[in-house]
Amino acid sequence: MKDGANLKKLGEFGLIERFARQISTGKGVVLGIGDDAAAFQPSPGRINLITTDMLIEGIHFDLSLCDPLSLGRKALSVNLSDIAAMGGEPRHFLLSLAIPPAMTLDFLDNCFTGMLQRAEQFGVTLIGGDTCASPATLVLSLTVLGEQFPDRIVPRSGARPGDRIFVTGTIGDSALGLRLLQQGERQGSAIVRHLDPLPRVLEGRALAEANIPSAMIDLSDGLLADLGHILDLSAAGARIHSEALPLSADFRGHFPAITEQTLSLALAGGEDYELLFTVPPEKISHVLPLMEKLGTPVSAIGTITEERKLAVIGPDGTEISLDRKGFDHFS
Amino acid sequence: MKDGANLKKLGEFGLIERFARQISTGKGVVLGIGDDAAAFQPSPGRINLITTDMLIEGIHFDLSLCDPLSLGRKALSVNLSDIAAMGGEPRHFLLSLAIPPAMTLDFLDNCFTGMLQRAEQFGVTLIGGDTCASPATLVLSLTVLGEQFPDRIVPRSGARPGDRIFVTGTIGDSALGLRLLQQGERQGSAIVRHLDPLPRVLEGRALAEANIPSAMIDLSDGLLADLGHILDLSAAGARIHSEALPLSADFRGHFPAITEQTLSLALAGGEDYELLFTVPPEKISHVLPLMEKLGTPVSAIGTITEERKLAVIGPDGTEISLDRKGFDHFS
Repeated sequence: MKDGANLKKLGEFGLIERFARQISTGKGVVLGIGDDAAAFQPSPGRINLITTDMLIEGIHFDLSLCDPLSLGRKALSVNLSDIAAMGGEPRHFLLSLAIPPAMTLDFLDNCFTGMLQRAEQFGVTLIGGDTCASPATLVLSLTVLGEQFPDRIVPRSGARPGDRIFVTGTIGDSALGLRLLQQGERQGSAIVRHLDPLPRVLEGRALAEANIPSAMIDLSDGLLADLGHILDLSAAGARIHSEALPLSADFRGHFPAITEQTLSLALAGGEDYELLFTVPPEKISHVLPLMEKLGTPVSAIGTITEERKLAVIGPDGTEISLDRKGFDHFS
Repeated sequence: MKDGANLKKLGEFGLIERFARQISTGKGVVLGIGDDAAAFQPSPGRINLITTDMLIEGIHFDLSLCDPLSLGRKALSVNLSDIAAMGGEPRHFLLSLAIPPAMTLDFLDNCFTGMLQRAEQFGVTLIGGDTCASPATLVLSLTVLGEQFPDRIVPRSGARPGDRIFVTGTIGDSALGLRLLQQGERQGSAIVRHLDPLPRVLEGRALAEANIPSAMIDLSDGLLADLGHILDLSAAGARIHSEALPLSADFRGHFPAITEQTLSLALAGGEDYELLFTVPPEKISHVLPLMEKLGTPVSAIGTITEERKLAVIGPDGTEISLDRKGFDHFS
């Protein structure tokens, strides 16, 4: 209650000032927080990238299961991940906060600190936003701006039959982490993957700069759903090999037998924030050396096909029937 | 319930597709809705402007008092108004929607139609956003991008002692409109001003292009609070003459006697979305002819002073004591 009172005393403009004091001016910022709009200088020869993601208490996060530092970091990470999927360089961001009556200043301070930690890590600067009251639940709406050279943008629509499909890191850990949190566990690598995912910004930029991927997407809705977006926009299909899917030691430790149910968790669980990208045959040999330089594991998991169908092939060479559908907010 | 079922059947991606089908590609759009991030080309020699505003059911609007068409238009207008206050040209926008279970597809369709009407009116294109479920209340979070020449940006910080203070249109109507709505009225110009304000985009651009204002802001928190932002950032004070305040015939009809209470409504009621700007002495004569060309009324209401104090002067030349504070979400 003490903190709630502090927040009330501080007021909307006081909170904005408190946040603004912690911000240093970033590259290209002409006008930051405090004017009607922020102003920034685009770099010569680049085009602008922009993405936005909203995180809502009770839908995207549960305050009893997450700490404010991680929440702040994650809110920025999921947006940075979208810029990564374009191969872009993130530069600036906006933060809109809707704050419920029960929120404490201490929680907000920690959440903001986490966000600024992640911002510093990836060289992005807060340049504006909005702060208001919320009737019941905390809402964080972030917008991240980035840049890319026009001939280096990696769209979802560029996959062609014969392209190999790659994915960075491991999948399914975040979904496992959420399940463990709901079961009362509070520690472990899967839980960290769920609460505090790291966006693959360096990997996305390196791949785009080397002109390797024909299409790229970040895994937020689940591998099958996100690969599905690439297939829809590229008018193609894919064959994925279940044995090639990158599952962490932690994931395999929890599920010694990989059943259709555990495969579904890995393929449709969502929130992996890894990059999935397709690579034309002549460039396949460039992928591993590049990722090795960054110390990032990468796996070839399948191939783009002419036939517009997404098939998951089991160890015996037959197709496994899985629910392709990823997370849909209204279903 | 029928419509709720339709929305469920349509799903998140179906709703995005339904919206995306209605969008035509705008100027400079490299990649619009449907990829990880939107991409757009900045115009040569310009800098980017960006602003974001969140509208939350139960805080910023009441679904029993507003129609969906107006709500959609207003959500975009309040953001366009911030670009107008920089003298900028709005170009693109992002829409994030958090949709509660009780929301109907019909309401969303109408809200989106209203937003696109306003977008067309001011030549802005929807290029991206986010759609998710909300536990209880509708949330609209919009981000508008614009452009401006670097030497034509009008900040809040440029007001100097001796500058004349101008305001477009009339003030207080929106606050009156809200009061009338709460009293059960449903029609009239004040109510339209509250539910469906028009941003002064043309006026802001014309003033900036003619290099007239030293500082500018749009009136969202109330004239005293918003002028206060200019004074804080310009390290100056102001004298406002109560008799010079532009009050509409409708406002004067409701309040034949202008008391301190009605002045407070006009000066602190908020949501006017007019432009307040300061003008150096040598440029004062340029203001009226320029605004006349646009058919926009404008009033000189006072002067910037050295003494860091905001004084409202009554008809008898003495200072009126008024509460300067505008709308604060947490007080």
